[in-house]
Amino acid sequence: MIGVMGPGKSAGAGDTGLAFELGRRIAEEGWILLSGGMAVGVMDAVSRGAKEAGGLTVGILPGRDEKGASGFLDVVLKTGMGSGRNNINVLSSDLVIVCGMSAGTASEAALALKAEKPVIFLGTEVGAVEFFKKLDPGRVHIARVPEEAVSLARTILSGRDSK
Amino acid sequence: MIGVMGPGKSAGAGDTGLAFELGRRIAEEGWILLSGGMAVGVMDAVSRGAKEAGGLTVGILPGRDEKGASGFLDVVLKTGMGSGRNNINVLSSDLVIVCGMSAGTASEAALALKAEKPVIFLGTEVGAVEFFKKLDPGRVHIARVPEEAVSLARTILSGRDSK
Amino acid sequence: MIGVMGPGKSAGAGDTGLAFELGRRIAEEGWILLSGGMAVGVMDAVSRGAKEAGGLTVGILPGRDEKGASGFLDVVLKTGMGSGRNNINVLSSDLVIVCGMSAGTASEAALALKAEKPVIFLGTEVGAVEFFKKLDPGRVHIARVPEEAVSLARTILSGRDSK
Amino acid sequence: MIGVMGPGKSAGAGDTGLAFELGRRIAEEGWILLSGGMAVGVMDAVSRGAKEAGGLTVGILPGRDEKGASGFLDVVLKTGMGSGRNNINVLSSDLVIVCGMSAGTASEAALALKAEKPVIFLGTEVGAVEFFKKLDPGRVHIARVPEEAVSLARTILSGRDSK
Repeated sequence: MIGVMGPGKSAGAGDTGLAFELGRRIAEEGWILLSGGMAVGVMDAVSRGAKEAGGLTVGILPGRDEKGASGFLDVVLKTGMGSGRNNINVLSSDLVIVCGMSAGTASEAALALKAEKPVIFLGTEVGAVEFFKKLDPGRVHIARVPEEAVSLARTILSGRDSK
Repeated sequence: MIGVMGPGKSAGAGDTGLAFELGRRIAEEGWILLSGGMAVGVMDAVSRGAKEAGGLTVGILPGRDEKGASGFLDVVLKTGMGSGRNNINVLSSDLVIVCGMSAGTASEAALALKAEKPVIFLGTEVGAVEFFKKLDPGRVHIARVPEEAVSLARTILSGRDSK
Repeated sequence: MIGVMGPGKSAGAGDTGLAFELGRRIAEEGWILLSGGMAVGVMDAVSRGAKEAGGLTVGILPGRDEKGASGFLDVVLKTGMGSGRNNINVLSSDLVIVCGMSAGTASEAALALKAEKPVIFLGTEVGAVEFFKKLDPGRVHIARVPEEAVSLARTILSGRDSK
Repeated sequence: MIGVMGPGKSAGAGDTGLAFELGRRIAEEGWILLSGGMAVGVMDAVSRGAKEAGGLTVGILPGRDEKGASGFLDVVLKTGMGSGRNNINVLSSDLVIVCGMSAGTASEAALALKAEKPVIFLGTEVGAVEFFKKLDPGRVHIARVPEEAVSLARTILSGRDSK
């Protein structure tokens, strides 16, 4: 299960473009996609990309009902915990790919490192990546395009499985 | 998504027998099965039943890793919240079926009523059902066999959808 | 820290009367009072009783702000987790006293037994107590009046501390 | 209630020195101190400072029991949620002061901004502050010494209350 985290309403067109393509490639790998599940920004775009490529999509909602949920989810979890659900997102992911940046996204990247998960930053601004790299150099990875992120993820996960 | 809640280690052979058959029938309806996800008792039996019938199974684990998880799950969520995850189980379910009874199961049945979800008690002792019926008479339903539970669930869900 | 759990809006005058007196006696023992923190029912009455007797009161709110919080709290925790906060209430309490009954209260009593906490039922209907006694006979205690509940709590806690 | 967030085991002597002095000053203002509650790093030092100055200290533990808790806490909440408790820390604080930096601390600073709380960075490295300032310029404040942090907090809170 691959978690993709990124901004909601504040996502730029570049973020959602990358996220859509990333979702498509995650599905093609046969991986399950996990996201924050809302019908906005990176969460929606990555789920749509994965769904269109025939993948299985999971969304972990902050709310207690389906209000505002993306229409591209197979499995919808309703936590009723607001941003408290961010820790569930990262614990449930074997690897986290960050696409874009916002306060919520930053909390997920930080929680992922705290939980000792590998994190790939896709198309993220240098300053942000530098900040996270200082927190945990060994677990922070950088990709410029979705293809590179998926290739990196494949390498990291196979390295882990071979241990 | 149908949530099936029941005892883990303390489950009797009757509970797991009912749960296995219930899982099979839930899968045959094309519903997604949600459970507490551990490799014991009702959670394991119902997931095995659903999986053998080709269904999609979701497990919401109390732990922060897959330790002790059922081997019959398609989607595994790791909450790291212990019994705090019980509220996510019921919020995420459109309807809850209770099979057997224990302290954890009782908390899930009570949280389900608090969240205004319909609850079907399958093969549950009369005293326990009476207790919950007093808490919320309109949402507590009784079934003796899995076939009846699934038939009741179908009726309740179609009634809700037609509103 | 003593947790007192009971119904909110659905609390009867008997419940809140017992809760007020119970809060007073908990404060007189020098114990910290923990409750669900809302300005209704047992939560409000027990906090008012403890506050008027000079005690320290803690409220664990379901919401993410102070909306609807009791005015008799010294320490206010905002969880933003809805009923998911019920498990924090019981984990944080050395002993739980249940006063009245509702779906939310039942979930807290069940979660307390699941967490292996002693639970004293104060003025609770026989049928409800019988239900919980079957789940965990050794941890369920019964009191008719607040004085008896506090005396029981003192005995249980001193027994535990002497181990 | 003022939340002070900072590294645990990875805290440097500078961090804990600032935290101890900060705790003392928070207590002198008559504010309640909230921290992550563990017996290490900034959490322990700030609680000790506040306690020695006669303040009220609250700790929100990641665990389900008191194992590893600071000895300088008046009110101990046990969440059993691991880092999932970080969101409760920030929601419960009127204002967050960050002292030092780590993955866990970064998640709390980010969650605080997400929850629209003012955040004061005390003695934090420039690069880290710049990262958070980009996420939410209006809510990020900088202090070099504890005295300045408390003075800033006083101004921010009084501005808020006068609205």
